[in-house]
Amino acid sequence: MLSKNQIKLITSLQQKKYRKQQQLFFAEGIKVIQELLNSNFELEHLFVTDAVFPTVPKNKISIITDAELKKISALTTANNCLALFKIPAEAPIRENGLIVALDDVRDPGNLGTILRLCDWFGITQVVCSLETVDIYNPKVVQATMGSITRVNVVYTDLADFIKGTKLPVFGTFMDGENIYKSKLPNEGVIVMGNEANGISSEIEKLTKYRISIPRFGDLQQTESLNVATATAIILSEFKREA
Amino acid sequence: MLSKNQIKLITSLQQKKYRKQQQLFFAEGIKVIQELLNSNFELEHLFVTDAVFPTVPKNKISIITDAELKKISALTTANNCLALFKIPAEAPIRENGLIVALDDVRDPGNLGTILRLCDWFGITQVVCSLETVDIYNPKVVQATMGSITRVNVVYTDLADFIKGTKLPVFGTFMDGENIYKSKLPNEGVIVMGNEANGISSEIEKLTKYRISIPRFGDLQQTESLNVATATAIILSEFKREA
Repeated sequence: MLSKNQIKLITSLQQKKYRKQQQLFFAEGIKVIQELLNSNFELEHLFVTDAVFPTVPKNKISIITDAELKKISALTTANNCLALFKIPAEAPIRENGLIVALDDVRDPGNLGTILRLCDWFGITQVVCSLETVDIYNPKVVQATMGSITRVNVVYTDLADFIKGTKLPVFGTFMDGENIYKSKLPNEGVIVMGNEANGISSEIEKLTKYRISIPRFGDLQQTESLNVATATAIILSEFKREA
Repeated sequence: MLSKNQIKLITSLQQKKYRKQQQLFFAEGIKVIQELLNSNFELEHLFVTDAVFPTVPKNKISIITDAELKKISALTTANNCLALFKIPAEAPIRENGLIVALDDVRDPGNLGTILRLCDWFGITQVVCSLETVDIYNPKVVQATMGSITRVNVVYTDLADFIKGTKLPVFGTFMDGENIYKSKLPNEGVIVMGNEANGISSEIEKLTKYRISIPRFGDLQQTESLNVATATAIILSEFKREA
């Protein structure tokens, strides 16, 4: 049974303002919820229709109907479970190895996919500009497929972070050095830009190493790669040399 | 001014059944429409609120209001133009160079992103299983960002195609050869599988070369890559050696 207040609370968490106020976010589906339960994230409450989570104490589980789940779900097709978790305190930036820095990535699916890629390639630190979409946005949480539990994401003034880091800073630009011919280090900050505008001019000025993914198709076309697929190719290049 | 019949026709084209019946599809936004106009696609009719297409004959343009556009748009936020195009006859498969074969890719965004990647890497032939999402689905057309005009997409029985091809056939599997250490040819068929189930067992049996993208993150995890980002990494590896 779901109360009106619970419905109001959970649906409000689709907005960043209320997530910040309540210090809560939610995740849906067995896979993502199970990964969060197995991590350091702290469960607030679990709502299930028929999913079984034997390790969760009974006072933290409510059995609800499909119709009730539909009311609180952010998905077009609701799953069979939804869990509220506490937003943890932001951990400090780990300044070693490879770091992915996002300069205003706005699409939740892109951020989620980039987190999954970082997880795959063993990159455990992502630094986001303050304008980048919130990691606790339900669409991001869903798209990470659980990678959110293994990658440390920090929001900060990106220019200040780049000015302060001792790591070499890489950015992708049309006129950059061919990434297939570049010597890429094991440590560094890889900046990926906004979907429409790429890397902002402020961050561009702070980016020492300019790289590019060569285009093999019709060179008359001005087409670009999606930021998530460009990240896939760049991370693959950085790691294959390691 | 939009008639009720026009609204009915255009909204019906969100479904494959009616696209097939009418042999029409639609695209939205200046960029995609302009690329289609510059290609061999044949315009049926153009609906605009304020976008200017000086090369289109006046009898093929209707000026409509924002409210009318909203009624026919498939986008959450309607653009300022929508164009109906004729579905062209399927061209035969060009069996040379690299071909991407899709074994039941279901997500429109993934198919669109894969087309964009093929275009970037100069791959002009994609072969889709009959269960793969339709290329003229409005979400696919949108996600291709115009690449639909430069990549030849054919739907066919994928097993029959693979049995008949003389090209070497590659597929991605967990136990495949490390792609970073494989000698990859300039010609071949690269099979990418379904989002949930990967490559089907029927196609797997027909796949001679098994490759894999090494995972660098926590190897205890069973996480996989999204099919579009996996395609990005694989195409990059095939092309970088060329």
